[in-house]
Amino acid sequence: MRATVMHGAGDVRIETVPDAHLVERTDALVTVTRAAICGSDLWPYKSMEPSETGRRMGHEFIGVVEDIGTDVQTIKAGDLVLSPFVWSDGTCLFCREGLQTSCLHGGRYGDDGVDGGQGQAVRVPQADGTLLLLPVGKEDALMPSLLTLTDVMATGHHAALAAEVGPGRSVAVVGDGAVGLCGVIAARRLGAERIIILGRHPDRIAVAKDFGATDVVSERGDEAVERVRELTDGLGAQSVLECVGLEQSTVTALSVVRPGGAVGRVGVPQGESIPEGVTTFFDNVTIAGGPAPARAYLEELLPDVLEGRIEPGRVFDRVTNLDGVPDGYRAMNDREAIKVMIEP
Amino acid sequence: MRATVMHGAGDVRIETVPDAHLVERTDALVTVTRAAICGSDLWPYKSMEPSETGRRMGHEFIGVVEDIGTDVQTIKAGDLVLSPFVWSDGTCLFCREGLQTSCLHGGRYGDDGVDGGQGQAVRVPQADGTLLLLPVGKEDALMPSLLTLTDVMATGHHAALAAEVGPGRSVAVVGDGAVGLCGVIAARRLGAERIIILGRHPDRIAVAKDFGATDVVSERGDEAVERVRELTDGLGAQSVLECVGLEQSTVTALSVVRPGGAVGRVGVPQGESIPEGVTTFFDNVTIAGGPAPARAYLEELLPDVLEGRIEPGRVFDRVTNLDGVPDGYRAMNDREAIKVMIEP
Repeated sequence: MRATVMHGAGDVRIETVPDAHLVERTDALVTVTRAAICGSDLWPYKSMEPSETGRRMGHEFIGVVEDIGTDVQTIKAGDLVLSPFVWSDGTCLFCREGLQTSCLHGGRYGDDGVDGGQGQAVRVPQADGTLLLLPVGKEDALMPSLLTLTDVMATGHHAALAAEVGPGRSVAVVGDGAVGLCGVIAARRLGAERIIILGRHPDRIAVAKDFGATDVVSERGDEAVERVRELTDGLGAQSVLECVGLEQSTVTALSVVRPGGAVGRVGVPQGESIPEGVTTFFDNVTIAGGPAPARAYLEELLPDVLEGRIEPGRVFDRVTNLDGVPDGYRAMNDREAIKVMIEP
Repeated sequence: MRATVMHGAGDVRIETVPDAHLVERTDALVTVTRAAICGSDLWPYKSMEPSETGRRMGHEFIGVVEDIGTDVQTIKAGDLVLSPFVWSDGTCLFCREGLQTSCLHGGRYGDDGVDGGQGQAVRVPQADGTLLLLPVGKEDALMPSLLTLTDVMATGHHAALAAEVGPGRSVAVVGDGAVGLCGVIAARRLGAERIIILGRHPDRIAVAKDFGATDVVSERGDEAVERVRELTDGLGAQSVLECVGLEQSTVTALSVVRPGGAVGRVGVPQGESIPEGVTTFFDNVTIAGGPAPARAYLEELLPDVLEGRIEPGRVFDRVTNLDGVPDGYRAMNDREAIKVMIEP
């Protein structure tokens, strides 16, 4: 079968790889009908050391079940299913607490002989714990929005929860990428009153406004901090969603939060410490978040997508087949595209 | 009047200073009957640059109201009152939210012409918002425990809340100083099942056990982390109270917390960043805490002290008059004493 393999920074190839096939009795074999390129795929795209064997890519996909292992009980061949960006058993201590990203028997796509999502098919481990049955056809018009539930919409929701967004709260969203935009949706959905997005790309800002952003701060650094304070009676936002992961964006996030407020971090941190200065502590700021346990949120978010209350699929502004994936990486890296959907 | 003035590292003096007196209409004048030396007083004791004028010290005290400003309504001359370690108006946005440490019109003892608590008398600004009336006599046997409500017991409680301690949770307390010991009390009071204290001073450990610690880890660094993991099924503690503030203790706290758990920080950080490594993010660890809004907790904690359900006053293992204060600093700095109570 064909799949996406990264061989180093800027070097993404579509290659013929061994066909996906069942290995464990808890596996499902899924033919991919939609996949996506993630902002986090851009980190290795910028920095990966050259590798002969390469690394299988992709962790966001929807597809049709072709076959199941003998222990799989909740899905069957022919089902249309969605996978969150990590697989998990659904039964361990952490899964029961809703923290499937820390599943004791889970793992990541593309690692340890598990296929990546940016290919024709995937062996899904722990299928019962991982996959969500979709009650629509595989070419349903809602596919883009459903696909965001695999990662970015769930991640925006996680950021909002970690930042303690609730009715009436003031919210700042740092970053206008797909996750930031989904963070705006999540904040509005949870009842935020004021939603300030920090970003400077006109196309993305337009989407953010449609999603519910009430204010835009296009400045950066200290000027951005100043602007957010002006918009919040000089106090800062009660909830801040850090949706980038760079040191600068983290400093900004921690600088625009109000005393007693919370920063929800979902941008994968590129540094090894949190640059808090001293005020974070003295202001009793809570720092929370991490990789989103998307699986825990699917049941809650799915109805909102199916019934059209949220439309996160608008973050996809480009569609390609597998052959176009390398250029899709380039386009996202060059900020030509917000997020690329793949129809293998 | 006589009061404690620090002139540099290791240089604490008892000096004659101008008598405390009313300035604002919202002030109260309080004669100090009990005060204390705080672990945080040891930071300048270790590092303060020499200063001719010096710095007034002390922020934990109980005393008798001598006089009040014309706007003060809730207390009167003769009342025995307790002050939390910062003063606050009780009416601003943050005070109403229970974050009196961020009061818009509050401040710290010893700063800006306000007296320190380690002296004969104190002008208390914003007396209505700050002071708590004590329903006992000034020589009541409960004085040591009541005095801890000004800071260390409230701080231990804050650490436990920030670390999301609740019934059945596993808790690790990093640090066996007065705050750590009060953290043990707070964790037990909030229903924690397992309370592991990390510390190595036999006298303090004995108190921690009396307070409810179920396990003691006397190792340090990686060995301490290993030990806590052994005690928690290899997973780490759900709630971790960081009661020291050094980089090493912060690393330990962040290393012994379970995925999805929370670290409540109350030790004043001595660094400018949080050394998270990468696992804190990927484990969805929450980092919360800061200076305790002690005022917010007094009504809840006071009955437990008055009715003898908690006995945090046991952290005081030395009593002195004002003349003995310099040696009290030395004793705490040398770890001869856990915490020193002052009877001016």
